Amino acid sequence: MNSPLSVHPRQQLQYLDDIVVGSRFQTGSHTLSTEEITAFARQFDPQPFHIDEEAAKSTFFGGLAASGWHTAAITMRLLVEGPVRPANGIIGAGVDVSWPAPTRAGDTLTVYSEVIDLKTSSSRPERGLMTLRSETRNQRGQVVQVQTSKLVVFRKPVAQAEQPS
Amino acid sequence: MNSPLSVHPRQQLQYLDDIVVGSRFQTGSHTLSTEEITAFARQFDPQPFHIDEEAAKSTFFGGLAASGWHTAAITMRLLVEGPVRPANGIIGAGVDVSWPAPTRAGDTLTVYSEVIDLKTSSSRPERGLMTLRSETRNQRGQVVQVQTSKLVVFRKPVAQAEQPS
Repeated sequence: MNSPLSVHPRQQLQYLDDIVVGSRFQTGSHTLSTEEITAFARQFDPQPFHIDEEAAKSTFFGGLAASGWHTAAITMRLLVEGPVRPANGIIGAGVDVSWPAPTRAGDTLTVYSEVIDLKTSSSRPERGLMTLRSETRNQRGQVVQVQTSKLVVFRKPVAQAEQPS
Repeated sequence: MNSPLSVHPRQQLQYLDDIVVGSRFQTGSHTLSTEEITAFARQFDPQPFHIDEEAAKSTFFGGLAASGWHTAAITMRLLVEGPVRPANGIIGAGVDVSWPAPTRAGDTLTVYSEVIDLKTSSSRPERGLMTLRSETRNQRGQVVQVQTSKLVVFRKPVAQAEQPS
């Protein structure tokens, strides 16, 4: 994985209190090799179009393509190393994923995210759910994955929060 | 991965024409080790609760937990090796995933699936979308992942299909 440190200002949205709906950020990038695609797929998604360049030519994908779960896993790595770091970690309660185009060997992936919703839990007021929409794009700007995640976020511990007025 | 061959009758739903809404199946099983959990997470989700048993104790998860993406990847492997094999492969257009409980080291995961919808494409009548709901359960029957997938399926090629009357 390339380091994302050089591509964005460090913008740590640590607590629920710090998160602003509408804020956007971009992660670092990662370039996939054929070997990475086939190694992941041999372990988790051993289908011809993900593991065999020759056999892949006559399939739906018309050539070797990464497993969608591989694209999702790389997206997670880029997010974990990206600029938004909730204090308790990136903890997904659930996610909606689609893959509008295949990821190919040699593609360089970058994630573009936007906070689209934020809700405090009614039963547990110390936590909430942040909804993050993330597009994973290749080097041509083509979207290979769209993901909408519900992430568990926490309020600032009382000792660190400002006193209520 | 354990072979699923012994746990179910081979029930190959190859083409759209063969798929029946309401049909259910079960995959083989896979038992995760601590090493698998931390190796996956070091590569794709390097957060303390997924890579470090000691550090994980004081986190949201209260102990080492597999990345949700690891649970999803294992679920995919079990499905690929399972009894439902669309003729052109298991090709996901999109998926909804939630993780109601963490996956722990030593857990044995099995996937229970049901075909909940099937639609022929209006623009491309030779293909359709099968909606598959899959629960991934541990050895205590606890659901660690619920996934609703839209899978691309194809009609029987004309040469193989019965002639229309």
